[in-house]
Amino acid sequence: MDERAALRQLAATLPHAGDDAAVVDDTAITTDMLHETTDFPAGTTRYTAGWRSVAASLSDLAAVGAQPTAVVAAYADTAFEADALAQFVDGAQAVCETVGADYVGGDLDNHTEFTVATTAIGDADTRVDRAGATPGDRVVVTGAFGRSAAALRLFKRGASDDDAIDRANGLFQFAPRIDAGRALAPSATAMMDSSDGLARSLHQLAEASDCGFAIERAAVPVTDALDEVANDDADRWEAAAHFGEDFELVATVPASRLDDVRAGSPTPLTEIGRVVESEEGVRVDGEPLADRGYTHG
Amino acid sequence: MDERAALRQLAATLPHAGDDAAVVDDTAITTDMLHETTDFPAGTTRYTAGWRSVAASLSDLAAVGAQPTAVVAAYADTAFEADALAQFVDGAQAVCETVGADYVGGDLDNHTEFTVATTAIGDADTRVDRAGATPGDRVVVTGAFGRSAAALRLFKRGASDDDAIDRANGLFQFAPRIDAGRALAPSATAMMDSSDGLARSLHQLAEASDCGFAIERAAVPVTDALDEVANDDADRWEAAAHFGEDFELVATVPASRLDDVRAGSPTPLTEIGRVVESEEGVRVDGEPLADRGYTHG
Repeated sequence: MDERAALRQLAATLPHAGDDAAVVDDTAITTDMLHETTDFPAGTTRYTAGWRSVAASLSDLAAVGAQPTAVVAAYADTAFEADALAQFVDGAQAVCETVGADYVGGDLDNHTEFTVATTAIGDADTRVDRAGATPGDRVVVTGAFGRSAAALRLFKRGASDDDAIDRANGLFQFAPRIDAGRALAPSATAMMDSSDGLARSLHQLAEASDCGFAIERAAVPVTDALDEVANDDADRWEAAAHFGEDFELVATVPASRLDDVRAGSPTPLTEIGRVVESEEGVRVDGEPLADRGYTHG
Repeated sequence: MDERAALRQLAATLPHAGDDAAVVDDTAITTDMLHETTDFPAGTTRYTAGWRSVAASLSDLAAVGAQPTAVVAAYADTAFEADALAQFVDGAQAVCETVGADYVGGDLDNHTEFTVATTAIGDADTRVDRAGATPGDRVVVTGAFGRSAAALRLFKRGASDDDAIDRANGLFQFAPRIDAGRALAPSATAMMDSSDGLARSLHQLAEASDCGFAIERAAVPVTDALDEVANDDADRWEAAAHFGEDFELVATVPASRLDDVRAGSPTPLTEIGRVVESEEGVRVDGEPLADRGYTHG
């Protein structure tokens, strides 16, 4: 059984399974586990690991429109090194400060591999899920896609290029889109983050909302960081649309609300297309977009 | 650096490091990571693993006097088996139901070993920490010590004794002491759970409160489950006082409040001694009690 099949099974007993975050009594809560072998390429600093693992959970709160209040992490490693642990905490605290949340520590654990489980909670007075996108709504996204794909290629240049490693760490320290999520929440009809990739996100929204999407490829923002590492335009698009791990927001907004939402979001929002009937499927420039992306390991 | 040294380092930057749970804006939050090799002996069912891992976090909430509202878990395994996952969720939901909390799922992850990270949140309108025990206060505990030690010995009988395995699973499914924690919180001067063992708990309370303890060994409740697996009385005491993983509450209460607290706690409280000056140290029947117990791996 793969992760998607397991999620389908869980959906029968756990109504929030598959959502970015669960909401209980106006408190949103979300948890993620990350591992050295699958999530932190060689060259990832512990500061970056602290930032990124906490930011991944903060992004899940952004995706439901919540305002983060506190984050905990369970930190497991083969041994506790004072410097590594201090750097991890510095990174975790730094990203929490950007969104006004408290990083309050958690659990320490010996383990066969560096593994982190982060949990973020926040206030979700206005919540959004994936199920309300309506034909005619506009599709907006934050930021630019392909940061993590670019980072991974830079990490692979590895030992021969310290500057590449530094830039890769910088790209891995993404900004969780809390302010945009808060601005979108009262008006968005559906929202999620793009952690599995833009393509998978659109397909997941289409499935949850029973709709289709007409996306304009030229409108999709792609990070400049891909310019130096992508082979060609097709490779660049693959990295931006399918690679995933980018943690941008993908939301649908009624056309009449778009200007107000944009004016209220400190993070710029880019319109990339519109919601169509489900029979029309998920298309980019009229061509079907493959439901292919990152399945979290 | 061992876990205790790492915690001391963290205490400089994270004020809640080492507490059972952090409290932010009247919300208590706590996280724990458990692994197959260190926490789930052969014979532990997935139902028990779900119950126990969630109960460990609920116990941390009990220790600060919080009322649990929601629990999430990140569930990682070498493969997702439908039955195992369903049983885990059943166990997690079952223990949440006993305390009125919602189990809302979490994250699924492929990993080299069955690993669970659970996080519980709750309302902490009245909070208790470890730092207020005052000479003259009485020391009270919930339940009886030695359940997990007895369970481990039963698990070791293993394949040759199905009944032993069943009883071991039953012992591993402990009741988080939420009701007692709530009853104690308004009156207790210090409180924690005994996850590292009764002896370590008393030493941790003594350090945080700058006090000593005079404990009566005959008053310490020890589980009957040890009768058939302990070699002798010394072994029985070792299992009860030092083994740990029992998740009972250890609290100090002003003598004048003791009757009211007992009357308000659905879970019986046993008085095992009293708080003394720090110079007197931590003693059982007048003899120093070794600061020795389970250091979580």
